[in-house]
Amino acid sequence: MNAAIYPGTFDPLTFGHLDVIERASRIFDRLIVAVGVNASKEPLFTIQERMDLVREVVAPLANVEVDSFDGLLVEYCRRKQVHALIRGLRAFSDFEYEFQMALTNRKLAPEIETIFLMPKETHSYLSSSMVRGIAAMKGNIEEFVPPAVREALERRVVPRVIRNDAASEE
Amino acid sequence: MNAAIYPGTFDPLTFGHLDVIERASRIFDRLIVAVGVNASKEPLFTIQERMDLVREVVAPLANVEVDSFDGLLVEYCRRKQVHALIRGLRAFSDFEYEFQMALTNRKLAPEIETIFLMPKETHSYLSSSMVRGIAAMKGNIEEFVPPAVREALERRVVPRVIRNDAASEE
Amino acid sequence: MNAAIYPGTFDPLTFGHLDVIERASRIFDRLIVAVGVNASKEPLFTIQERMDLVREVVAPLANVEVDSFDGLLVEYCRRKQVHALIRGLRAFSDFEYEFQMALTNRKLAPEIETIFLMPKETHSYLSSSMVRGIAAMKGNIEEFVPPAVREALERRVVPRVIRNDAASEE
Amino acid sequence: MNAAIYPGTFDPLTFGHLDVIERASRIFDRLIVAVGVNASKEPLFTIQERMDLVREVVAPLANVEVDSFDGLLVEYCRRKQVHALIRGLRAFSDFEYEFQMALTNRKLAPEIETIFLMPKETHSYLSSSMVRGIAAMKGNIEEFVPPAVREALERRVVPRVIRNDAASEE
Amino acid sequence: MNAAIYPGTFDPLTFGHLDVIERASRIFDRLIVAVGVNASKEPLFTIQERMDLVREVVAPLANVEVDSFDGLLVEYCRRKQVHALIRGLRAFSDFEYEFQMALTNRKLAPEIETIFLMPKETHSYLSSSMVRGIAAMKGNIEEFVPPAVREALERRVVPRVIRNDAASEE
Amino acid sequence: MNAAIYPGTFDPLTFGHLDVIERASRIFDRLIVAVGVNASKEPLFTIQERMDLVREVVAPLANVEVDSFDGLLVEYCRRKQVHALIRGLRAFSDFEYEFQMALTNRKLAPEIETIFLMPKETHSYLSSSMVRGIAAMKGNIEEFVPPAVREALERRVVPRVIRNDAASEE
Repeated sequence: MNAAIYPGTFDPLTFGHLDVIERASRIFDRLIVAVGVNASKEPLFTIQERMDLVREVVAPLANVEVDSFDGLLVEYCRRKQVHALIRGLRAFSDFEYEFQMALTNRKLAPEIETIFLMPKETHSYLSSSMVRGIAAMKGNIEEFVPPAVREALERRVVPRVIRNDAASEE
Repeated sequence: MNAAIYPGTFDPLTFGHLDVIERASRIFDRLIVAVGVNASKEPLFTIQERMDLVREVVAPLANVEVDSFDGLLVEYCRRKQVHALIRGLRAFSDFEYEFQMALTNRKLAPEIETIFLMPKETHSYLSSSMVRGIAAMKGNIEEFVPPAVREALERRVVPRVIRNDAASEE
Repeated sequence: MNAAIYPGTFDPLTFGHLDVIERASRIFDRLIVAVGVNASKEPLFTIQERMDLVREVVAPLANVEVDSFDGLLVEYCRRKQVHALIRGLRAFSDFEYEFQMALTNRKLAPEIETIFLMPKETHSYLSSSMVRGIAAMKGNIEEFVPPAVREALERRVVPRVIRNDAASEE
Repeated sequence: MNAAIYPGTFDPLTFGHLDVIERASRIFDRLIVAVGVNASKEPLFTIQERMDLVREVVAPLANVEVDSFDGLLVEYCRRKQVHALIRGLRAFSDFEYEFQMALTNRKLAPEIETIFLMPKETHSYLSSSMVRGIAAMKGNIEEFVPPAVREALERRVVPRVIRNDAASEE
Repeated sequence: MNAAIYPGTFDPLTFGHLDVIERASRIFDRLIVAVGVNASKEPLFTIQERMDLVREVVAPLANVEVDSFDGLLVEYCRRKQVHALIRGLRAFSDFEYEFQMALTNRKLAPEIETIFLMPKETHSYLSSSMVRGIAAMKGNIEEFVPPAVREALERRVVPRVIRNDAASEE
Repeated sequence: MNAAIYPGTFDPLTFGHLDVIERASRIFDRLIVAVGVNASKEPLFTIQERMDLVREVVAPLANVEVDSFDGLLVEYCRRKQVHALIRGLRAFSDFEYEFQMALTNRKLAPEIETIFLMPKETHSYLSSSMVRGIAAMKGNIEEFVPPAVREALERRVVPRVIRNDAASEE
């Protein structure tokens, strides 16, 4: 059976992530959305909250499951016996970072292939941090995240992140 | 009347910012330089100090005024009833970040247009953080900032930021 | 005599750094690897440890010496009376950052020339921070750093940095 | 009066061009769409045909006029006494080419400012040559160009350009 | 059954193409290498010669077949009832061109997904045109193409293309 | 003795080339400017004319000589027993093309090192083709090329190349 893993922090899931999930679920028989514990960043939502939000949103997709992982991603893939990693390649994303990570993972585990999908162009500028920033300033985020995520964000008192808006000009 | 807003942190204003201000002031009848309060970053200069420095430097430009703003930039534009946002597009800047921010702002407020100007090429590598770093190490910054800013920087005890100089070690 | 300085943080030295050192040592009669004190970052290894590791690894290269520096890099070059700065230009590195730094240093000291060398393509994705992250998760780093560095990393209790692995997906 | 020139080959005009024209016509009191004679390329449509198509499409925009020019663009601007040049900056365009051209034009005519606008993201991948190529292979171009342009393309026997489709063979 | 199409001109096939073919053949149950007729370029090898060379090289891969196509690629995919397109994404390739083509094809045929794979980094700078150029100057190409392709190139009197070597310096 | 080769087409030499030549001549004991015969492009100036122009301009630099070459650049380097190749890395140049060429040359001749220098930022947008285009339209090129080159260009009836000016808008 053809399976793939889509790893990420999903803090929180955006329409961009959802678009990649839908595309990957049409190509692969089974897709695992793997939420990273990510001990070194301080996420806005706990690992459990992030998994719950992803689960609620992907519920209609029968071949998609949600899991969490800690430690090296390639070790997680090996435990799951999955050899395909999915990454969304946004036009406005850190393209070089993606390549660097993919080449590093290939060195650590040559049998695992990274597969890049291109999200819808209207989602290509979306990022979780931008969404957190706009929500913190009470901006309207309904075009950026699914309803369940929007409600969760509005309930949460979020730290103010202005960078996405006020324009760092350094 | 044709008005535009040029938002930024201006911590502190550099010759690159000044160049963009001069160009925009020739295209638009009225230009508001909007200094962001930017609660989440710890600026070197207070919002009042930053506004005062900008005001002193742009004093000769009759159609330029200086203001501050807090919260969502697009909400500030709406309050001011201005529909044009100015951004400098440096060859060495975060081009993708600028596009991402502009597309996000367009989603939040489709009636506001982001307009990119290109600073002089000799200013295209200037950044406020670089200037702060060099000043912290007692380097000569007179080619990077106007005299008033230089004096303010020299009076201020600045935290040492070496990255711009010692070379991040890849 | 034709001398050059190769500055960096080297926290720790990777095969990518070593490759650049070897290339530069063939072009120049004398090469100084200059380890930056870098007061503002919290390095994993002390300045002394980093210098010792570099020294051990470059020992076979007769025309390479190891030094440390603090403050403005261009001032260090002037004290050493060296007019050539070496930088590795990785395909996956911050190309724009390198240009910005080189142009800034040229403004501060026009007599000092920055010279870019291209490391082996199989090293072009290597970074010290990635290596620290993988070591922190007990990943195998033997393809990324020389044996002496690997042992030093394994002895050190390193803070967990997951970004390189779990994929920030914002 | 605040006027601007939007130069191009428009062979033929696409929805991407139209989007830039509409944005510029809201910022400036008067906009001249300047169709380049472009003697060195062999256009699919004659200068007259290209002007006619642009005119038909921009007819609803009261402050937009259509003209042609030959020779140096900056000389044309000077004859027209217009100091603002409009360029669309597509995410997927030749960003560096645009900067190079703008800096060159600034050197030739420092009083003329190039102003970059960002077309709608759904148009950011559109190019005239791609549209010509798809039309040549009888593909459906109705999402790429206005109806008048589509009809003109379908009437014209176009030379086959496969690059946009068959994949340049790297 | 999970099938994919890998389109290209393959004039001639390089180790970079072969690497992508091998990766794709491990992910998909069936892979069609589709050689484009490409009427507008003047290929060095005829469509039949290019197909024969690909066939010879991929013979050991049981689930890979070779075909040719003419006209719109998405129409070819539809006729073949395949919904996955493979593209290699080289670090040194025309990344923007690939995105532009993928977004265009998505507009023409939303049901077809473009999937990007990353060739081995040691192949990431390989291009067919570079190989043709080096062969034309009697350079050694054995590290760039399989033996069968090398022999075919050496037999063919190739037009001299110096760009890859003498360095266009404009 | 420390020698280097700076290869190019120099059709014609610009201030950008001259800047790289001057920088390289300060780093190396001996510099050979190698003008490529470049059979496949149709240059504006003959190989002899291009060499003569370079020679006239670099006459004041005692350690610079001018030569021509044909065929594989690395073979030329080997015949000259020079192991350092100089390339200017313009911010607005084809960065990826330079890397691709350097990696290819390294594969063909591992003992030859490519060294990148950064021209003055005010020259970073200069290209020979742009200069030819402006000269063809009787534009003022005195800020782009040395006087000898300007006179040669003005004497020559040049084919009109409008792309640099009229803005290809595809």
